[in-house]
Amino acid sequence: MDVRGYVESNAREFIDDLTQWLTIPSISADPARHGDVRHSAAWLAGHLRGAGFGVAEVWDTGGLPAVFAEWPAADPAAPVVLVYGHHDVQPVEPFEEWRSPPFEPVERDGRLLGRGSLGVRAALAASGAAAPPVTIKLIVEGEEESGSEHFAALLRRERERLACDVIVISDTTMWAADVPSMCTGMRGLLPVEVALTGPVRDLHSGSFGGGVPNPLHAMAALLAGLHDERNRVTLPRFYDRVLPLSDEEKDLLARLPFDEKHWLAEAGESGAAHGEQGYSTLERIWARPTAEINGMWGGHTGPGNKTIIPRAAHAKISFRLVADQDPADVAAAFREYVAAWTPDGLTAEILVHPAVRPCHSPIDSPAVLAGRRAMQRAFGREVLFTKEGGSGPEADLAEILDAPLVFVAVGLDSDQIHAPNESVDTTLLLRGAEASAYLWHELAVADLR
Amino acid sequence: MDVRGYVESNAREFIDDLTQWLTIPSISADPARHGDVRHSAAWLAGHLRGAGFGVAEVWDTGGLPAVFAEWPAADPAAPVVLVYGHHDVQPVEPFEEWRSPPFEPVERDGRLLGRGSLGVRAALAASGAAAPPVTIKLIVEGEEESGSEHFAALLRRERERLACDVIVISDTTMWAADVPSMCTGMRGLLPVEVALTGPVRDLHSGSFGGGVPNPLHAMAALLAGLHDERNRVTLPRFYDRVLPLSDEEKDLLARLPFDEKHWLAEAGESGAAHGEQGYSTLERIWARPTAEINGMWGGHTGPGNKTIIPRAAHAKISFRLVADQDPADVAAAFREYVAAWTPDGLTAEILVHPAVRPCHSPIDSPAVLAGRRAMQRAFGREVLFTKEGGSGPEADLAEILDAPLVFVAVGLDSDQIHAPNESVDTTLLLRGAEASAYLWHELAVADLR
Repeated sequence: MDVRGYVESNAREFIDDLTQWLTIPSISADPARHGDVRHSAAWLAGHLRGAGFGVAEVWDTGGLPAVFAEWPAADPAAPVVLVYGHHDVQPVEPFEEWRSPPFEPVERDGRLLGRGSLGVRAALAASGAAAPPVTIKLIVEGEEESGSEHFAALLRRERERLACDVIVISDTTMWAADVPSMCTGMRGLLPVEVALTGPVRDLHSGSFGGGVPNPLHAMAALLAGLHDERNRVTLPRFYDRVLPLSDEEKDLLARLPFDEKHWLAEAGESGAAHGEQGYSTLERIWARPTAEINGMWGGHTGPGNKTIIPRAAHAKISFRLVADQDPADVAAAFREYVAAWTPDGLTAEILVHPAVRPCHSPIDSPAVLAGRRAMQRAFGREVLFTKEGGSGPEADLAEILDAPLVFVAVGLDSDQIHAPNESVDTTLLLRGAEASAYLWHELAVADLR
Repeated sequence: MDVRGYVESNAREFIDDLTQWLTIPSISADPARHGDVRHSAAWLAGHLRGAGFGVAEVWDTGGLPAVFAEWPAADPAAPVVLVYGHHDVQPVEPFEEWRSPPFEPVERDGRLLGRGSLGVRAALAASGAAAPPVTIKLIVEGEEESGSEHFAALLRRERERLACDVIVISDTTMWAADVPSMCTGMRGLLPVEVALTGPVRDLHSGSFGGGVPNPLHAMAALLAGLHDERNRVTLPRFYDRVLPLSDEEKDLLARLPFDEKHWLAEAGESGAAHGEQGYSTLERIWARPTAEINGMWGGHTGPGNKTIIPRAAHAKISFRLVADQDPADVAAAFREYVAAWTPDGLTAEILVHPAVRPCHSPIDSPAVLAGRRAMQRAFGREVLFTKEGGSGPEADLAEILDAPLVFVAVGLDSDQIHAPNESVDTTLLLRGAEASAYLWHELAVADLR
């Protein structure tokens, strides 16, 4: 039996099985649901053992549990592939915005694991072998939707058992059900805060206005100065380490059927696209770094007017970073920038929050080429490339385990499923299982080391 | 007996009398004290009748009462002088900042009325006449410290009875006990608010950051753009109607013994003076218009970070205006400015609060020259000129009653009384009474019409 035949004839059983799991409300951000997250981990470990994984363990993290599983290749010299996923889900509020009842399979990322285990079984069925052509390890965390707080520490602690030649990320999305695509990078994040403090108390602007520096003026100038007239970020050295898109990448991005008007309408924007000059919208949100003011405040913000020169102004800013920017460099550049923009008589205070590093998979790397071949075999058409504007723990995985990333995933951005549709969902599930079956073979012959 | 002799021999009696009045906590801003404000008005009317005013009435305003009094000149053709003051006081909180117990005479503006009535009596005693050389009218409001809400309507309603040739403002301050001075102008105020609104909801900056306009960026740019590199306000036509200081005014201001370091320290400023280029600090805070951001807010302002592009940004701004700027012109210019700074895709909303007009008394006007002669006679030395950075209802008085303003006052800015001192206070009370006695004579012979 070939891969597709195996997948199709076993689909119903897998979907029924998964449905049972997907009804567990494993919301990591809600302490009242933490019992459900633990239940979800236990269910998953049991399911993986049943599917044939010789090792399937629930790992304590100090927070919510992760699941680790391993199915060794027959050949001990075969490459080791680590698949990353998560078994927790997002909070379901606001209920009124849900288009189908929560905790039914349609809207759940969790189905990717169905694809994964079905894919391994299909690969075995098709090859007639008792073990996959690569050693497959799974690490499935339970805190992705609440910030992966304990994940990096877990990776460091279990570096030995997680050791691998390539990391497969399976929770990203494809462009559309009929436009298969692979993610090749995710922006990082550096959140900072800055406060400018002047007078020891709020001053009356009748007495002092025009004669002393106003922290709100200085903050407005500092924030306005973050971008130049081309909408480029003005921090010193900000673009020095930015990896430019190659012409091939630009061409491939441009071939995605992107409806900019529709995208703007989803953002509630009535105007035209906006951003750094010289780049398309997709390039701007995926492949270019940004500085975004997330909040600012100071002075009188209640009803009516109060003619004060306030004592302090505050702002929260986050930088989206792309490969090969280093959050520590950007934090240092931000300190320099603020010092240069703080006028005499005001004092600046800076807070740097924990950063997320950007990650990047070159489209000509052996792992990405192997993943693309697997996807193309499953979908029967050319696979394009995307990126993502934000990220989770992917960069930590790559850095701590010192292995390249490849994103092989067939989920759709829930914003793009305008009419949830069981048949689209089932088709993608089957294609995903098929792609992962091919992936083990493609990775087995790729030159990963 | 001459004026000074009369004042000195009657001082104790007046001070004792006033002390009784000044202990009434007539706090107009505190509804629980409104009974005291009414009590204060009744006491004052009684006192003025006792001092010889033929008319002394408590006027209902719809809010807290004002007191009107009149003492006609013998000559019906003599000029009519309207003296403005207020009988309400500021809230006494925070108590811990008071240097002497509240509602003792030292810290009270109310003493100016003691000076006024003692001054009339002294003028009569010195001249041997039964009536003053000018018709003296007093209007003493009870809501000055809470915004003079009903005062303009009262002026319009009682325009006939308040008709006058000159308005004497007696609640401003002198530079110092040993530096007699007269105020010659007060800045006006135009408070506005602006909101910039973009997306229909907060957006995730991972998905949209760098691709849609952020209202906080636009607001920062709008606010930063309010001043140019010389710290001049960039609103269209903003300076077109600004009356420049004459060389004589600049010279007189420069002769005030102004300790800039001390002033900055009072403002809690550690740096250097700041403001519009080409002007001294006193010129900046008294004679130059400003734009001051009083508050701004938008996006995430709580703890931690939230990587949003917020849906809206807000700011409260107030313009300090000088003669002959018109608040309506400035409001129109602000609307133009905001329209020009609102990027495609964002919507601006503007709120214009009620304005206070600037007021101005030319130093070479007959009324100011008469006031200056009276002050110089009382103090025995040259009287300098000051201005005030903020204002109350003075511009309304001048405009509604169509008469020039002259500021004759001997109070000290409470910030400048570093060691409250009964003897300084008593000396000023006596000099003020003396100055007002001379003032009636000076105004009687001035060419006011």
